[in-house]
Amino acid sequence: MSKHMGVASVKFSTPPTIKAAAAIVGPKEGEGPLAEYFDEISSDVLFGEETWEQAESEMVRRTINLVVEKAKLKMDEIQYILAGDLLNQGSGSNYGVRSLGRPFFGLFGACSAMGEAMSLGSMIIDGGFAEHVVASASSHYCGAEKTFRFPLELGTQRPPTSSWTVTGDGAVVLSKTGDGPFITSVTTGTVIDMGITDANNMGAAMAPAAAEVITNHFNDLNISPDHYDAIITGDLGEVGKTLLIQLMNDSGYDISKQHNDCGLQIYDRKAQGVEAGGSGCGCSAATFAGYYFQNLKAGKIKRMLFVPTGSLHNVVAIQQGETIPAIAHAVAVHSFM
Amino acid sequence: MSKHMGVASVKFSTPPTIKAAAAIVGPKEGEGPLAEYFDEISSDVLFGEETWEQAESEMVRRTINLVVEKAKLKMDEIQYILAGDLLNQGSGSNYGVRSLGRPFFGLFGACSAMGEAMSLGSMIIDGGFAEHVVASASSHYCGAEKTFRFPLELGTQRPPTSSWTVTGDGAVVLSKTGDGPFITSVTTGTVIDMGITDANNMGAAMAPAAAEVITNHFNDLNISPDHYDAIITGDLGEVGKTLLIQLMNDSGYDISKQHNDCGLQIYDRKAQGVEAGGSGCGCSAATFAGYYFQNLKAGKIKRMLFVPTGSLHNVVAIQQGETIPAIAHAVAVHSFM
Repeated sequence: MSKHMGVASVKFSTPPTIKAAAAIVGPKEGEGPLAEYFDEISSDVLFGEETWEQAESEMVRRTINLVVEKAKLKMDEIQYILAGDLLNQGSGSNYGVRSLGRPFFGLFGACSAMGEAMSLGSMIIDGGFAEHVVASASSHYCGAEKTFRFPLELGTQRPPTSSWTVTGDGAVVLSKTGDGPFITSVTTGTVIDMGITDANNMGAAMAPAAAEVITNHFNDLNISPDHYDAIITGDLGEVGKTLLIQLMNDSGYDISKQHNDCGLQIYDRKAQGVEAGGSGCGCSAATFAGYYFQNLKAGKIKRMLFVPTGSLHNVVAIQQGETIPAIAHAVAVHSFM
Repeated sequence: MSKHMGVASVKFSTPPTIKAAAAIVGPKEGEGPLAEYFDEISSDVLFGEETWEQAESEMVRRTINLVVEKAKLKMDEIQYILAGDLLNQGSGSNYGVRSLGRPFFGLFGACSAMGEAMSLGSMIIDGGFAEHVVASASSHYCGAEKTFRFPLELGTQRPPTSSWTVTGDGAVVLSKTGDGPFITSVTTGTVIDMGITDANNMGAAMAPAAAEVITNHFNDLNISPDHYDAIITGDLGEVGKTLLIQLMNDSGYDISKQHNDCGLQIYDRKAQGVEAGGSGCGCSAATFAGYYFQNLKAGKIKRMLFVPTGSLHNVVAIQQGETIPAIAHAVAVHSFM
């Protein structure tokens, strides 16, 4: 029996449970409005390491260890780790899981990584291939600026459409059995490119990808926005949020009541000087694993559509005059079945 | 019923069929001993594009279109594309699938990408989530040298342990039903780091990862090397092959009769000046999708263990004195059930 629905969705026959979630962030994120929801706020942006890249890998290692501990499991009960990040060749994740000794699937979906990891992780569980998997996504402000834009030491001025890459890792343990919250369905994104060339305006590049996957989700499952209490994108920021609401209206869906964006929630934009908002794989991953998981667990949010959004460019492509492709993945999470 | 076996393997209840395979390569690969097995040999290493990166994406697009055509399917019957490459932020794949409009999972496993894509693709099929998926992996010599080592224009001397990145893409269509060859089981690799720091000796870095996943495969499925006619690693080259045979002997398994390495097969090492052999995601992907697929289809090879191997370093990590982690994924393919 195929579980595939419509053009891009699957509905799980035995929805995987999110057994535990953990979020570890840097000092700036710990000064933001979601501070109380994070498991650990590192006062040291280097996480005790010597380079930004090693710092990210150490954060990944620590977060995965923590989430497995919170799930009351031993590391060797985790049958797969799925993880992604923003660094070249996924080095944040590759070096982060190196000491953990578990079967590993490295992913690249840019800032949609947490959606991709939760989607594939849920298929692995519901398909009968594992009892427990870890899904993780991370980013580090300093490593991301160095990778994509300018070394921080240059002191480059940031345009108002730019976003601030979150230093953080969010990870979940997905399990075959448990008392929820449950992942009931996922809708997988396609690569969408609307011709944006400004790598400082990723919200505009990603909004059409988010609109496409959310529209597909509603159509495939034959539901409407009011099926959800919360429809939460990853890191569209202020610019992308406005665009998304418009694009969804064009598709015949009004999501203005349910929509929010992790990039607008993780920082106090005025007080913290982050321009259009937060971004990075860690933005949606840590916001979900911290704030949303706790709200789902407490039943304060009953049905949520989590839509991490990713901008798939790299520096070379931008220098060659290429436009910015984007993708978003939708994950439906219900607090109870 | 869990399909998980041992520490890192799954056995499929309804083994997915490889409905079609396609390989498109560059001119140098077309001068090698496997030329007759490739679907297309581009005389132009730029594939009609202006940059190496655009050339790789065009090769990806063309190969995926071709494999879907060979499977006698329409593109919109493909429910997922899984693809990976070596470029920063997976841009070879991201830009390559941009025009195809299909749900996409971007992967990063370095040169193990084809193993990762076939593993996850098989789980998606056997789990009941799709009828047809495409798995693809690509690399381009010129883009890879620029990304990892030196721009070609420098004319840097190559050490004898170095390998030659294959310009090529191999892609398969995996389907729920068909007449084979069939993917019967997969064993997923862990990240292994034995402390190698020389980015020109990746065979030595990857051999332990290959040994680990092959050993796990035998142990998990309770089989021995003579279960297979062919045990084929991705791109260990001459240095890594010797190491792998030794490491497997240490594990109590003699694979010397069955083992070969795509990196040693795709070029005539002496005549083509490729030092230790071929490498890159495209090396194992194109060799499998060309040479091995046709041999499996014809029943000349009955049971094969395909083990793409990946070196998970990046330039920044090497500059920071980091060692090279590696991973390998094993995919068992039977010509009939």
